[in-house]
Amino acid sequence: MATKAIFYHAACPVCVEAEQSLAHALDKNRFDLEVVHLGQSKDRLAEAEKAGVKSVPALVIGNVPLHINHGADLAALK
Amino acid sequence: MATKAIFYHAACPVCVEAEQSLAHALDKNRFDLEVVHLGQSKDRLAEAEKAGVKSVPALVIGNVPLHINHGADLAALK
Repeated sequence: MATKAIFYHAACPVCVEAEQSLAHALDKNRFDLEVVHLGQSKDRLAEAEKAGVKSVPALVIGNVPLHINHGADLAALK
Repeated sequence: MATKAIFYHAACPVCVEAEQSLAHALDKNRFDLEVVHLGQSKDRLAEAEKAGVKSVPALVIGNVPLHINHGADLAALK
């Protein structure tokens, strides 16, 4: 069964670069990738915070939150 | 042709987590992954810096440096 991977972003330049270079580099056979725009989907903010996300871009693989470079703090998206 | 991806680390807990969850999650058919321990291979420090790496763990995919969470600044490994 594929592991869930969620890429959280806010459409910032740092986010776009991370999505293109990293998020889509995951093995599609092993990971089920979902891309979530937290600026548009504010209803997903609580879920991201619960997963340990503090800034975007971030990739949550399984239950591991991975912050990639730094685009914006989550607090700035509320 | 596979894109070169280099995962730089220093064997710190944050590094180990990022290697297991992210570096090995890349699609092996599209990416040629090399794992470099900068604490042991200090001769690779200059190359990492030139690629834009400022802290470990970091993953350089093609020519894009991606810092993942934060384990240690590169300066601490010199």
